[in-house]
Amino acid sequence: MSLLSKNAGFRRVVIDHVSPQVDGGRNPFKRVLGDWITFKAHAFADSHDLLIVELRLRLHGESEWQIIPMRELGNDEFEATFETREIGLYEYEIAGVIDHYGSWYEGFKKKHAEGLPIDLECRIGAELLEHIANRAPKKEAERFREWAAHLGDSNANIDTRVSLAYSRHVAGMARAYPQREWETCSARSLMLVERELAAFSSWYEYFPRSCADDGVTHGTFKDAAKRLPEVQRMGFNIVYFPPINPIGREFRKGKNNTLTPSPEDVGSPWAIGAKEGGHKSILPELGTLEDFQWFLSEAGNHGAEVALDIAFQCAPDHPWVKEHPQWFRWRPDGTVQYAENPPKKYQDILPINFESDDWENLWEELKSVFEYWIGVGVKVFRVDNPHTKSMEFWRWCILNIKAKHPEVLFLAEAFTRPKRKYFLAKGGFTHGYTYFTWRNTATELQQYVEELTTGEAKDYFWPNFWPNTPDILHEDLQTGNRATYIGRYLLAATLSSNIGIYGPSYELLDHVPYPGKEENNNSEKYQLKAWNWDEPGNIKNEIARINWIRNSHSAFQRTFNVQFIPCSNTHIIAYLKQNFDHTDRFIVVVNMDWEHKQVGTLELPMEELKLASDGQLRLRDLFSDDQKEYTWQGPTAYLELSPNANQAHILEIIG
Amino acid sequence: MSLLSKNAGFRRVVIDHVSPQVDGGRNPFKRVLGDWITFKAHAFADSHDLLIVELRLRLHGESEWQIIPMRELGNDEFEATFETREIGLYEYEIAGVIDHYGSWYEGFKKKHAEGLPIDLECRIGAELLEHIANRAPKKEAERFREWAAHLGDSNANIDTRVSLAYSRHVAGMARAYPQREWETCSARSLMLVERELAAFSSWYEYFPRSCADDGVTHGTFKDAAKRLPEVQRMGFNIVYFPPINPIGREFRKGKNNTLTPSPEDVGSPWAIGAKEGGHKSILPELGTLEDFQWFLSEAGNHGAEVALDIAFQCAPDHPWVKEHPQWFRWRPDGTVQYAENPPKKYQDILPINFESDDWENLWEELKSVFEYWIGVGVKVFRVDNPHTKSMEFWRWCILNIKAKHPEVLFLAEAFTRPKRKYFLAKGGFTHGYTYFTWRNTATELQQYVEELTTGEAKDYFWPNFWPNTPDILHEDLQTGNRATYIGRYLLAATLSSNIGIYGPSYELLDHVPYPGKEENNNSEKYQLKAWNWDEPGNIKNEIARINWIRNSHSAFQRTFNVQFIPCSNTHIIAYLKQNFDHTDRFIVVVNMDWEHKQVGTLELPMEELKLASDGQLRLRDLFSDDQKEYTWQGPTAYLELSPNANQAHILEIIG
Repeated sequence: MSLLSKNAGFRRVVIDHVSPQVDGGRNPFKRVLGDWITFKAHAFADSHDLLIVELRLRLHGESEWQIIPMRELGNDEFEATFETREIGLYEYEIAGVIDHYGSWYEGFKKKHAEGLPIDLECRIGAELLEHIANRAPKKEAERFREWAAHLGDSNANIDTRVSLAYSRHVAGMARAYPQREWETCSARSLMLVERELAAFSSWYEYFPRSCADDGVTHGTFKDAAKRLPEVQRMGFNIVYFPPINPIGREFRKGKNNTLTPSPEDVGSPWAIGAKEGGHKSILPELGTLEDFQWFLSEAGNHGAEVALDIAFQCAPDHPWVKEHPQWFRWRPDGTVQYAENPPKKYQDILPINFESDDWENLWEELKSVFEYWIGVGVKVFRVDNPHTKSMEFWRWCILNIKAKHPEVLFLAEAFTRPKRKYFLAKGGFTHGYTYFTWRNTATELQQYVEELTTGEAKDYFWPNFWPNTPDILHEDLQTGNRATYIGRYLLAATLSSNIGIYGPSYELLDHVPYPGKEENNNSEKYQLKAWNWDEPGNIKNEIARINWIRNSHSAFQRTFNVQFIPCSNTHIIAYLKQNFDHTDRFIVVVNMDWEHKQVGTLELPMEELKLASDGQLRLRDLFSDDQKEYTWQGPTAYLELSPNANQAHILEIIG
Repeated sequence: MSLLSKNAGFRRVVIDHVSPQVDGGRNPFKRVLGDWITFKAHAFADSHDLLIVELRLRLHGESEWQIIPMRELGNDEFEATFETREIGLYEYEIAGVIDHYGSWYEGFKKKHAEGLPIDLECRIGAELLEHIANRAPKKEAERFREWAAHLGDSNANIDTRVSLAYSRHVAGMARAYPQREWETCSARSLMLVERELAAFSSWYEYFPRSCADDGVTHGTFKDAAKRLPEVQRMGFNIVYFPPINPIGREFRKGKNNTLTPSPEDVGSPWAIGAKEGGHKSILPELGTLEDFQWFLSEAGNHGAEVALDIAFQCAPDHPWVKEHPQWFRWRPDGTVQYAENPPKKYQDILPINFESDDWENLWEELKSVFEYWIGVGVKVFRVDNPHTKSMEFWRWCILNIKAKHPEVLFLAEAFTRPKRKYFLAKGGFTHGYTYFTWRNTATELQQYVEELTTGEAKDYFWPNFWPNTPDILHEDLQTGNRATYIGRYLLAATLSSNIGIYGPSYELLDHVPYPGKEENNNSEKYQLKAWNWDEPGNIKNEIARINWIRNSHSAFQRTFNVQFIPCSNTHIIAYLKQNFDHTDRFIVVVNMDWEHKQVGTLELPMEELKLASDGQLRLRDLFSDDQKEYTWQGPTAYLELSPNANQAHILEIIG
């Protein structure tokens, strides 16, 4: 249809500026179960006629709409509020239509008040009621016809006709049957309502194969389960495993990513697939499918869900390579180019060719990988490097899964440029990894968090802050001390409601890098490790305390409720976190100089705190051993923060 | 298609955030002939492949696209600039596709520099060149095949193969033939490029029927032509007539809008249609079609185009009422309800029913009214109350006319709520009337102009400022003095590049209202008037001077180039106007207290003026009789402005 075609003129209502809405409705905005969502739109017509504007929602795939009338705010703006009571992928639309009888009703009242002749007006109203009778269901139709007959009868008593005309009941009934074929409707739009875990999660990543603890014996799911009590004590609610699939033998990597493995080398879990199977199989050394399902239930008993790592790539001996050679890009010498993510090279991994002519089968097979594990009982997925696969594939794959399994969460491991990260989020990824790891000064971090929490992406991009991962040991951690590790975790955990660490590397301060790289030396990615899980100097208690604060205070269970507090010293970062009804409020202050004491003065946001400019604030530092209390006299507060004593405060506002 | 359908995965490029763009491209944004337009978009794909992103434009209805490559700005943002050389309704789109050979070329250079084995890489490049050969036209195809053969020949000299691989020429040629069937394209979008008169116009409205000058004889086009030299001397470039169609006799209005006309009463020109004809006929008393065409040419000789008033409504004796009764809304008593625009009542006018089943014929007939007058030679239309007719009708009607006759301008007389005004502008109306008339303090006026010039609507809504109209004699004018009339015109003319007055009422200070109304007494809308066009005290010379400044200075020929200057006295409004390259710069100051002298101090925008904070500014007041010069020493300037001496300055910055 040309942009200049006729759009039927009797559709007299214009619907415009629908919000919230992402990409004209094609992609979903996100909210959490229990949220109240305010929908808005502009709606207007020519003339002074009244409008009926309504919001319609339904879970994708349902046939019945839930209809919510929108109220007029003036200036042609309309609004409706929807309380989310069920998670899922929703469709919604906003429709407007003229209320002919209501418009007549308002005009009638004015004309009658002016003392104008009224018989003809009544007869016009009667005609409108007859039209409504033709549209209404049988039972109502009869009543409309009776009303019409009386209202339109010039020989009847004019007083009873006038009271019928004045009837709010009749006008209200009539509003239910406007001329719907003349309505204007916004684009069909998507919305995702997520479960609480999507808004608030603490991930703990570890390698089950290292859980035999001697660095030689291959760990199993049974071994991994032994770590669960400690993970629970530290307060995490998701345990996340690197891929548990069979590991390729061709071009297998040796320790420290070398190209010359010895026979006992275990290879990288991301080199997926071997003769034992591919993405729907389990590495036999870890255990059986039953063992894995047992682990799922054990984790549940310890308050955690299990996240699996899905990496759509193949070792050269993955069954797909033989069964579906058309899914790979073959070179003139009959080989497939291995994966690269410059400067990284993955000689043990073949990328999938999304330009394959057989893309539809490929897509279905990839989606079925998630569906397989969902069938096994997994509800959380971390997806490896999604930004190196077709963007439209992800949107289709994830939204279709969410439509059937709205409880399933997806974390995008996309350390890439912002617009790709945002597109993946629009395509349905619940969380995205962020640049938190590389924001190492108070100014940088504040700027970044403000971009995430106030930019247009906040309707769909939910950040997940990770101080470390098996791929990233930031220079600040390499050269850092205990205060660095505590401080970076505390920042992540109090700024973002979704966070994770790669342990036990993190809590044991495993800071030695592979020379010249941003990665751990002797990384578990390529070998078994013998961790001393109770190594002296570890920060498990500090992590446990921070997570206890998060778990017991709703102020930290959302990300977009942060307000930064100016401080005179740029080494100190400070922010206010408040829950939705301001019954749970915190001021967090952190000295980001991990080596030296810093002093500074905060300018307190007295207005936001609803205090007079010299008002008093009582605070309790939940992060301190003695739960120390302070009284601050506004509008400023003086701080002294030392790395080895009180590097940070997590101050609950108690009065 | 469901929102969850597959969008082919080999379309790996995402195109997003296209700008400028209105309503996702469905409605046009506007620019003026000669403007350089910068188009932007986000474009990205999975992987590190290079992209080819291009802007395509064409006049609506043409088959060939003009293609402009977009350059990458970094961070996945692309940009292209288009110089407008032809007015018209354009379509544009932004498309992106992977540059497979270019991506290979960049990879090859790196791999060669690293000293990696290169034969296989060359063979991969050769395969890509072969694919390109299959897509290229015959002549180029042969060359691509030759290159492919050499590059892929493992037996050939490796040095010449490598230099072929390094060839920027080959890579550049290859860019012309990407895999177009895999491209991603934005929504087809509209853009209007208007002629200069759309950006800069000075309208003079008068009633030709009053031009016989005795209040009794009906004026003709010949009489109206006698006013043209004076209109030209005052510096207007559009003369605008109220409707020139036959005027209905049924329910004709008498003087001062009374319902009891005497036989000699001429009625309202907006009560269109009688036995002599309707919207395509001329009131015989004004002259013939030939007379009107002669007037068009006379106006042209005096530097003005003629605007006709199109009012889609009918007197009860309009031929359409009998010929097309289905275009009207009939009441049970066999009459049609007359038009109302509360509190105004138009007993002599029947509205058209846009809910008619016969809407398609109705639309065609209405559009043909414009087409008829365009055929006669009219290129400018003022449209009466468009907001009381179907919004979608206007969009269809105007955009289709603009597609064929891009030189035609439309002014929407829509004194209605903002969102309707904006929608009419999006539907193609060149100008819209504004609330200027009701913004009577410096603060109100500044706020309003800032809303118009910086809000999102500036891409499509072009304001037209009218200090008065035959329908609106604002209380400030009713009670105002000479300074009020001069001041209000000066404000309109220096704030907005498009302006108009209803004369000679305005320049003769015809300030007597019909009691209790915002309208002139004994209005020309209902009777002939005998004006003394040279009445003492008139402000024709002041208007002429203001228009002379506008006509000779490009700073005043655009609306969106205004920057307000803070003043210590809220009675004084001050603003900077600069043309696009800052070669024409003005500071305008106006005392908006029309009765008393006011003094105040300006805070000059020294940075915007590119001056040091104590820099000097030389100015010449083009509005003063003696073209007085001033030297201001920044950063402030002291002003004294008196209503009867120097109520305003129009200060050209001369150094």
